[in-house]
Amino acid sequence: MSAIERSKKSTLLLIVLALSGSGAARADDLDSVAATLIERGLATHQAWELVRSLTVEAGSRFAGSSGDARGVAWAERTMRELGLENVRTEPVTVPHWIRGEAEVAILSPWAHDLVAVALGGSVGTPEAGIEAEVVQVSDLDALEALPDAAVAGKIVFFNRRMERRRDGSDYGPTVQPRGRGPSAAAKRGAVAVVIRSVGTGPHRFAHTGATRYEDGVIKIPAAALAVPDADILEAQLESDRPVRLLLRLTARRLPDAQSANVVGEVVGSERPEEIVLLAAHLDSWDVGTGAHDDGAGVAVVLQAARLVLSLPRRPRRTIRVLLTANEEFGLSGATAYGEAYAEQMGDHVLGVESDLGGGRVWRFATRVNEGALPFMRRVHALLEPLGVEWHGDAAWGGADLKPLREAKAPLADLSADATSYFDYHHTQDDTVDKIDPDDIAQHSTVYAVLAWAVADGDVEPRPAPAVPARR
Amino acid sequence: MSAIERSKKSTLLLIVLALSGSGAARADDLDSVAATLIERGLATHQAWELVRSLTVEAGSRFAGSSGDARGVAWAERTMRELGLENVRTEPVTVPHWIRGEAEVAILSPWAHDLVAVALGGSVGTPEAGIEAEVVQVSDLDALEALPDAAVAGKIVFFNRRMERRRDGSDYGPTVQPRGRGPSAAAKRGAVAVVIRSVGTGPHRFAHTGATRYEDGVIKIPAAALAVPDADILEAQLESDRPVRLLLRLTARRLPDAQSANVVGEVVGSERPEEIVLLAAHLDSWDVGTGAHDDGAGVAVVLQAARLVLSLPRRPRRTIRVLLTANEEFGLSGATAYGEAYAEQMGDHVLGVESDLGGGRVWRFATRVNEGALPFMRRVHALLEPLGVEWHGDAAWGGADLKPLREAKAPLADLSADATSYFDYHHTQDDTVDKIDPDDIAQHSTVYAVLAWAVADGDVEPRPAPAVPARR
Repeated sequence: MSAIERSKKSTLLLIVLALSGSGAARADDLDSVAATLIERGLATHQAWELVRSLTVEAGSRFAGSSGDARGVAWAERTMRELGLENVRTEPVTVPHWIRGEAEVAILSPWAHDLVAVALGGSVGTPEAGIEAEVVQVSDLDALEALPDAAVAGKIVFFNRRMERRRDGSDYGPTVQPRGRGPSAAAKRGAVAVVIRSVGTGPHRFAHTGATRYEDGVIKIPAAALAVPDADILEAQLESDRPVRLLLRLTARRLPDAQSANVVGEVVGSERPEEIVLLAAHLDSWDVGTGAHDDGAGVAVVLQAARLVLSLPRRPRRTIRVLLTANEEFGLSGATAYGEAYAEQMGDHVLGVESDLGGGRVWRFATRVNEGALPFMRRVHALLEPLGVEWHGDAAWGGADLKPLREAKAPLADLSADATSYFDYHHTQDDTVDKIDPDDIAQHSTVYAVLAWAVADGDVEPRPAPAVPARR
Repeated sequence: MSAIERSKKSTLLLIVLALSGSGAARADDLDSVAATLIERGLATHQAWELVRSLTVEAGSRFAGSSGDARGVAWAERTMRELGLENVRTEPVTVPHWIRGEAEVAILSPWAHDLVAVALGGSVGTPEAGIEAEVVQVSDLDALEALPDAAVAGKIVFFNRRMERRRDGSDYGPTVQPRGRGPSAAAKRGAVAVVIRSVGTGPHRFAHTGATRYEDGVIKIPAAALAVPDADILEAQLESDRPVRLLLRLTARRLPDAQSANVVGEVVGSERPEEIVLLAAHLDSWDVGTGAHDDGAGVAVVLQAARLVLSLPRRPRRTIRVLLTANEEFGLSGATAYGEAYAEQMGDHVLGVESDLGGGRVWRFATRVNEGALPFMRRVHALLEPLGVEWHGDAAWGGADLKPLREAKAPLADLSADATSYFDYHHTQDDTVDKIDPDDIAQHSTVYAVLAWAVADGDVEPRPAPAVPARR
């Protein structure tokens, strides 16, 4: 080959590279961009500062509350300040329930005021409260095994301790009586339900969370007891004397209210219609300030977008940040998103949610088509130095990704370390000081790397295998 | 010496030993008795079970409350069950204050409901509450340094963080604004006071505790904010916008009520009129169940007496267990004890109190006459294997030993490890699960060894050097 020929060939190569878009160059690019994201992401406490700002300015953000509205305003303003595009709020109708007061007291054998909260959605009691003897069961099966006479007219106490685990996997089994206990007990003639809080901490906070009444079954009031208070009730039951409880709740339902999903984007440079969705929920329960749940997730997805925006160029696909309304009390925002974007469900090349607190990400799972798995393993290799394990291709995606899941969109799970998450979850104690700034920096960095990799890569994760029905 | 002479001499020696009482024999005895006490004391969780029983059956025991009366009944019954002698209740008149509700909310720039409790003894607010701008100071000196115009009409926020220390020594400086802040602020024209809770924990509990109004100064209401809530108030003040607060307290004073000290004894075999006093307070604040403060101390001194009673013989001097009424809200029981036993103050050969929670004892100090120090160092040598350091002869004795201190009675400090004590102190979260059964076993064992050693020994700790006035 002559020098001229060689020169021509080089020029051609340059042209080919230029014409081919950034395909090959960008594939090589991933390692260095990931390195930049990791370096920047781990060096800053911006994610923690976002949670602090949200919780100081909006506080708790329960569906329909004034804090909910302040949260929406905060999110819209913050997205604009961070430089996201197409920032908009999308109206969502939400149920509006008021917790009111919870008074739970042991009347005999030894009088005690117990720390308790109403379960989310519980009906109230008559003004004077409900007084009855307590019958203790470990779970729904144990309730079924009791004769009717042991339950009728009683207050059922579901007393199951939740185990502390890194993956939070004892939440699923322990939470069953919270959701289904009141209707199950009502069918047997019980007059009310109390549960040991679904939580792992030793502190005197009651953990709320939604209960679900079955249609056609009488609605009986239900409350959660703080762990030390469940211990006291348990100790009194051990005396083998009848234990009588007073339960008074002023909870009530109001007409539906208006809230909003807040959406913003990093618009893709080449395939803007293809979407990598980063989701978290903006609402929280009313009792705390919703720092871990889910201010952390909000900060994580915003910070991931900020890190991507700090790069010299945009990814080819769009990264969309979705902050949903009312996850806690009925997935209103997720449902509204599914309806509003029904036509676009097929455009989601990946959905990932952050809703397990502000801990470090320690596990990565996907649900993508087989051909995309080698790319996902490559992304995992980038995350491994951050302490992230590979967990296979059976991701669930999270509650708010329901419409994507139903549409068989590709999903990922980036699991936060949940060892201490259920100490704070759904309690008054869920405040920003419980989040480690370095942990949430790692967490948001991992999201940024995954979002960038899929948004900028040639990978095609669609269609994903279907998700089997959960319990 | 002939065999007969030798035999005579041996017999004489035996007679001399017998006639000399148990002096020499008992001095040698101390090591083996201490070993028995330590072996038995560390092998049982009885002390923890006593706290559990008290907190399950009586619950909180605030002066004048129904729990206070249940606590007195529990103590009297338990002393009899343990085999103490001369068990009696001695009437004590106590102040009766009702906490009521505390509503503290930031109104602007960002509305927030704050977790708060009234300081003990606070006056209530008008029914609509008090609304005013907040002025933040670090301590009483910083308040004094402000111009009147910066304070008049404001709510003063005392914002000093308490440091975690094993000896709890940051409590003294941090608690000053709780006691003296309201009157100091009122003198400058403030309308109310809030303080950052005097506590070391990160959880969302407000720490109560007594405040003291000066005579002749207008009484303004005062509340403590939970640590995360003080953080939110601090963060809003950092915005440099005016921060307005609403404070509503329904606290009020009722007529004095009746309570009781509960006293029981292990009567000495030779000098029953000489007393080793083991003290703890039976009352607690109303917000928790008073497990660390001072159910632990109650259990420690009862368990120490039980361990001594398990020995084959009684000590020579009397060990008296004193469970006082209303330490928290004015030392009523200690004062009543000083009055009732004014003539016996000189009979106290030692006073020791347990009122720093149920942690392990790590330090031993005395206040005895110089001649008794070698014996006290010998007792320390017995305790050293349990992790107890020697801390010299400048013991203070504790709040409830005031009458002994004023009478220059010998005192000892057996300091509990207070590293986590101020996480729970004066909060709703002070429940029995926060006490480690092994720690309180060690704690009560140490008390048993000291009590036995002094009650059975020849040592004469009287008179003790005077205690210098405290700040």
